[in-house]
Amino acid sequence: MKPFAPLSALSIARDLEAGTLSPQDVFEHQNERIKALEETLQVFASSVPKAAAHNGPLRGISIGVKDIYDTFDMPTGHNSPIYTDHHPRADSSLVAMLREAGATIAGKTVTTEFAFFHPGPTRNPHNTNHTPGGSSSGSAAGVAAGFFPAAIGSQTGGSVVRPAAFCGVSGYKPSFRLFPTVGMKCFSWLLDTAGFFAASAADNAFVASACSGRNLQVREADISAPRIGVFRQKADHLQSDAMQSAIEQMINAAQAAGASVVEITASEEFEACDAAHSTIQDYEAYRALGFERQNHANLLSPMLSDHLAKAALVTSDAYDNARRTANRARKASHALFESCDILIAPSAPGAAPEGLASTGNSVFNRPWTLLGMPCVNVPGTFDANAMPLGVQVIAPFGQDQKALQAAHWLEKRV
Amino acid sequence: MKPFAPLSALSIARDLEAGTLSPQDVFEHQNERIKALEETLQVFASSVPKAAAHNGPLRGISIGVKDIYDTFDMPTGHNSPIYTDHHPRADSSLVAMLREAGATIAGKTVTTEFAFFHPGPTRNPHNTNHTPGGSSSGSAAGVAAGFFPAAIGSQTGGSVVRPAAFCGVSGYKPSFRLFPTVGMKCFSWLLDTAGFFAASAADNAFVASACSGRNLQVREADISAPRIGVFRQKADHLQSDAMQSAIEQMINAAQAAGASVVEITASEEFEACDAAHSTIQDYEAYRALGFERQNHANLLSPMLSDHLAKAALVTSDAYDNARRTANRARKASHALFESCDILIAPSAPGAAPEGLASTGNSVFNRPWTLLGMPCVNVPGTFDANAMPLGVQVIAPFGQDQKALQAAHWLEKRV
Repeated sequence: MKPFAPLSALSIARDLEAGTLSPQDVFEHQNERIKALEETLQVFASSVPKAAAHNGPLRGISIGVKDIYDTFDMPTGHNSPIYTDHHPRADSSLVAMLREAGATIAGKTVTTEFAFFHPGPTRNPHNTNHTPGGSSSGSAAGVAAGFFPAAIGSQTGGSVVRPAAFCGVSGYKPSFRLFPTVGMKCFSWLLDTAGFFAASAADNAFVASACSGRNLQVREADISAPRIGVFRQKADHLQSDAMQSAIEQMINAAQAAGASVVEITASEEFEACDAAHSTIQDYEAYRALGFERQNHANLLSPMLSDHLAKAALVTSDAYDNARRTANRARKASHALFESCDILIAPSAPGAAPEGLASTGNSVFNRPWTLLGMPCVNVPGTFDANAMPLGVQVIAPFGQDQKALQAAHWLEKRV
Repeated sequence: MKPFAPLSALSIARDLEAGTLSPQDVFEHQNERIKALEETLQVFASSVPKAAAHNGPLRGISIGVKDIYDTFDMPTGHNSPIYTDHHPRADSSLVAMLREAGATIAGKTVTTEFAFFHPGPTRNPHNTNHTPGGSSSGSAAGVAAGFFPAAIGSQTGGSVVRPAAFCGVSGYKPSFRLFPTVGMKCFSWLLDTAGFFAASAADNAFVASACSGRNLQVREADISAPRIGVFRQKADHLQSDAMQSAIEQMINAAQAAGASVVEITASEEFEACDAAHSTIQDYEAYRALGFERQNHANLLSPMLSDHLAKAALVTSDAYDNARRTANRARKASHALFESCDILIAPSAPGAAPEGLASTGNSVFNRPWTLLGMPCVNVPGTFDANAMPLGVQVIAPFGQDQKALQAAHWLEKRV
């Protein structure tokens, strides 16, 4: 038995409401976990642990905030020495929305450098020799370890769904621009997507609904067995055997519980998305990090420096063409759902790789980020070494509640 | 004869290149204007005038920067007491792009409070009892008065095209997201659009091309007489007589010079845009200014406070519907160009209103901002009181060069 488990935000909220739990109880419970494990896991970039209970639906719920979101009362470092002791004047919009709903900010969680690939010190709670994934490393690991019941992160390539899968928690990447990235450090303005981590899809739906006033909530009684499309694409050969088994397991469990299952093969338009994603991300990152390149080139990691040197070569024409490719693929994506409600696909090629030098491969995430479609990682399966595997549910643009409901349905049956 | 005139960025660049002008000459000439007129006009929120000539195509060109764009070496105040002495850590992306192209930042120009309607102290150079328009007030007035040859601003409703029209300069609102708003204070993330001010369309095209590497340049030899669509819409009854005459004048001059002219009537989808614009702007502004509402409500102007109180009532459903309305109108907008290359429409109902309490009406700008289509104000006509009137050229999404070329063609013939 592992000495940790994610905490359910929904359960905490219910128990606080019922009076069977006090905010002080919640704080002490979480703080014990943090005291026991933070030195090893290194979830936080900065934190000021305190018990707090503001009014609102997220009263008593503490939230880990990826350290690329501005906070007026905690430093915001982007995991870059360029931003040592950087104290923003204001909160980012999503942080302000969470506070307005009564949430407490647990602290700033470790990100890779500017949410790209150069890793931070965070370790995977399931095996500290493995990466937690990235770029939202601390948010995923902190939810997995029960430091806080929920966290926010961001996905430009695969930075929500992948670390959620590697750490065995629910990761929700909403439809593009459903939640604001205002006051979040930009890497790519057409790709950066705000996202959530929690113990389960229902917990993520609760937090996302509570801070936005949107109806995203998941209620078991409302959900019938979905028509599932098993998505097949060229990158499938990169799946580990364990990952393939996890998908098979999920298909079998879903069919046994009454879901219909069809195979859906990626269109040409979809297969063009990965290259378009790189072109758009690189063109925009070169410009989004213009100040840092011009003034602090020596403080960028070699990994990022080298990448930006290549990014400098992306022309406006190539960028405009990539945007057209993305638009064509968005239009074509409707056809993927002609015979199913949601798609399932690997959240990553396999479990978290060993070592901290790489945060893993985002190949199974990048096209969906480019398409702006909601994705939810379903945890619950493990490989032979007890490392979590993740399968993602994908729904059409704007149908976030459907993605969360299907993820919930699958969680309960896997 | 007025004691001022806009300076041509293109001419300055050519003369510097030819060696007939030195950066010091340019600086002194501009500084004389500033010394003579700044006390009256109040263009700058802050400035540190200096001669400078970095390498690059914008060497020796000084640029006024609206005071909602972050600058690492000048305060950024958003014209709000909440941001007194606010010194951002980094440059906004567009400022970094301008500097990388060799430009000198002339100073931060006065904005309305958070680029909404509460006005700043800036006065219209053509008559200091009149508003310069907003929200990019200082950028428009500063170009008109020759303080700097070019400036950047932003348009969420009509904040580039309208002040350009009121101050008699060229204002270029690019296609949505052609230029980054990264590091610019957000009011509405689906509407905020970075834009440019200069003496003429060719000057704007030069600056925008130079900082982006895009081919937007205007060359007289490349341009033939455009097929012009005179846009007719329900709001036309708000046009002043002088504005109607300006449009007639332009039609006559264009026809005389060989342009074909047709009338294009607004579609139902277009007429739905104004309401959708309000809904989207208000929903997003309420969230974008979450920190300010929660922590500094007493430091917001009554105009903005009242507006945000109403904005709080916009539901997610209303917002989602407004986004659908916008998408329908974007698709329908292609039909507007079946029989013409570009549209012309008033840049504002008339000339700049008297007084500084209101920056004028953005009714003729909001739908185009929502549609993300490039708009260029064509200066050159005046009312009976010698106040500038503006007509805007509108082109399909992504056809910015076409809009700039047509604006240039019209400037030369009016």
